[in-house]
Amino acid sequence: MLVHGQPYRTLWMTDDATVRIIDQRRLPWSFELLDLRSVADVAHAIRDMAVRGAGLIGATAAHGMALAAREAASPAELQRLALELTATRPTAVNLAWAVNRQLAAVAAAGFEKRVAVTLAEARRVADEDAAMCAAIGRHGLEVIRGIANQKPGRVVNVLTHCNAGWLAFVDHGSATSPVYAAHAAGIPVHVWVDETRPRSQGARLTAWELGQQGVPHTVIPDNTGGHLMQHGLVDLVITGADRVTRGGDVANKIGTYLKALAARDNGIPFYVALPSSTFDDTLTDGLREIPIEQRGEDEVTHLEGVAADGSVQTVRIVPEGSPAANYGFDVTPARLVTGLITERGITAPGLPGPE
Amino acid sequence: MLVHGQPYRTLWMTDDATVRIIDQRRLPWSFELLDLRSVADVAHAIRDMAVRGAGLIGATAAHGMALAAREAASPAELQRLALELTATRPTAVNLAWAVNRQLAAVAAAGFEKRVAVTLAEARRVADEDAAMCAAIGRHGLEVIRGIANQKPGRVVNVLTHCNAGWLAFVDHGSATSPVYAAHAAGIPVHVWVDETRPRSQGARLTAWELGQQGVPHTVIPDNTGGHLMQHGLVDLVITGADRVTRGGDVANKIGTYLKALAARDNGIPFYVALPSSTFDDTLTDGLREIPIEQRGEDEVTHLEGVAADGSVQTVRIVPEGSPAANYGFDVTPARLVTGLITERGITAPGLPGPE
Repeated sequence: MLVHGQPYRTLWMTDDATVRIIDQRRLPWSFELLDLRSVADVAHAIRDMAVRGAGLIGATAAHGMALAAREAASPAELQRLALELTATRPTAVNLAWAVNRQLAAVAAAGFEKRVAVTLAEARRVADEDAAMCAAIGRHGLEVIRGIANQKPGRVVNVLTHCNAGWLAFVDHGSATSPVYAAHAAGIPVHVWVDETRPRSQGARLTAWELGQQGVPHTVIPDNTGGHLMQHGLVDLVITGADRVTRGGDVANKIGTYLKALAARDNGIPFYVALPSSTFDDTLTDGLREIPIEQRGEDEVTHLEGVAADGSVQTVRIVPEGSPAANYGFDVTPARLVTGLITERGITAPGLPGPE
Repeated sequence: MLVHGQPYRTLWMTDDATVRIIDQRRLPWSFELLDLRSVADVAHAIRDMAVRGAGLIGATAAHGMALAAREAASPAELQRLALELTATRPTAVNLAWAVNRQLAAVAAAGFEKRVAVTLAEARRVADEDAAMCAAIGRHGLEVIRGIANQKPGRVVNVLTHCNAGWLAFVDHGSATSPVYAAHAAGIPVHVWVDETRPRSQGARLTAWELGQQGVPHTVIPDNTGGHLMQHGLVDLVITGADRVTRGGDVANKIGTYLKALAARDNGIPFYVALPSSTFDDTLTDGLREIPIEQRGEDEVTHLEGVAADGSVQTVRIVPEGSPAANYGFDVTPARLVTGLITERGITAPGLPGPE
């Protein structure tokens, strides 16, 4: 997608030994590229969240394995470097998946072909991720087109939560992909961007990428969506997902459930866009079985922004002595989900549509 | 209520010519008192939001009229000063009410008795406000006691939104008053404090006053309440109200509606605590008839906090070029409200209780 008018992916190789990424820790205050030239560089970038989002973490790990193939003088050493990469974020399913895919490719081709094989495989992982997100966009576009046809000449208002944008993948994103497709197709779209406290991925990342792409959007506090829906200012909701059960319960960024409730109360379609790899068929009851990560309270009590003098500052926004709680995700029951948009098409997990 | 272990009201007279207030613009970063010695001082304090909240604005205006009585050499001049006060926040119903009450008292007693009459009336307005909030607390205490009796020995978890605390009134508050009453009665209570973006009145004011009173509490992002309710971590919700229709539709701080939806979805009682003067019997349909104020986008794009060096800083938290929307209130339909707690008792506007 576009940054300063130029097309970008979130990572690519500049030569056979250098992985270049967008340093997402600096966004939106500054757009900086970072070159990763060793497995240690890649591990640090993942651990320190210079890259984040399931799709991008997987692609970064696949590229890290291409650097590992150069560094490793033996299969045992390649295994050790693979473990170094998977240890960076142990709960990221895509990370282990990408590393294992590379190890299998090397095993199949033979250790002596490791460099060429892992380079090709890294490129394939990135291309597949981008193609999958593009397919989500094509399917989601038809939902937006259907709504646009019902209100010809008027803007279609999409509400989204957190960042399931191209910054979380290699390109296009999941929840944003239908929006980008509609914008490219000339359908007038406008996005209400939930700020998404506490980490503000909506305000920081989604707003930034929509702005760079020229898609009209408005940042709103997380409290606002219900009011907008009551007043006909939202046509559909599209969010991403971190994990989806067999029955269609959706674990996603904390606060998603509240927007799903408001959508149902106002008869507004609520869609979840996701790669089909996000389904976890071992789970049946999302509310009981999906563990919800609790993160540090400093993400609630402190916030980063740009001060009047242009410097990036972190300020405390909660009184000293008041504790804070920081649950990372919530679970939206399938009954509130109108449709799941994957690269394969759209399925309805719960009721056939809003009541 | 307590500040640094000492009992306080939000305003009082230190002598017949000085109104002392807590400067709420500085909270929670520092606790500062401010002396108002003229109508101009009082007008500035109201306009600049050193005092805020319906009850407190009314009481401050009543005290401002006591200073006006000293300054005015003629009935015409008293009228002019009264207008100066009512012009500070034209939409604050309590402000005009308090000023008119003072003008009526002077008219009844005679202009020559204006100083003594307005002093006595100001004291009465403050005492009545405090007594009314105390009565709300006594009625709400019975709701909390009922829940406590169903889970003996375990903590009652209350979720609240925004600040309907003693800082918004003269003492006790509305939504917080039942909590303070329960805490004083030895019932173990814990309050989930919604941060309440964009102005963060929950994180800044409610957390501070609960902390000063020694009431256990935890600040949470506004996204969190639904997840807590799904997992049995909230026993009841109590919020304040800005305006309530005849049928019981509740206009309150933006985001209240989302919490009411989650409470209903999880069978949790949702109470609104308010002085009965908050009812507006001219309204029947809250959603259509209550105008929702839109405030400046800088409240969304910028946030104030304490930097590492201890200075109070305002930082930008949204990318340059991304617009923001700032709706001040939303309307919670009566069907989602379990009960309205006023100084007169508890009434059920919608359904008799959660489904």
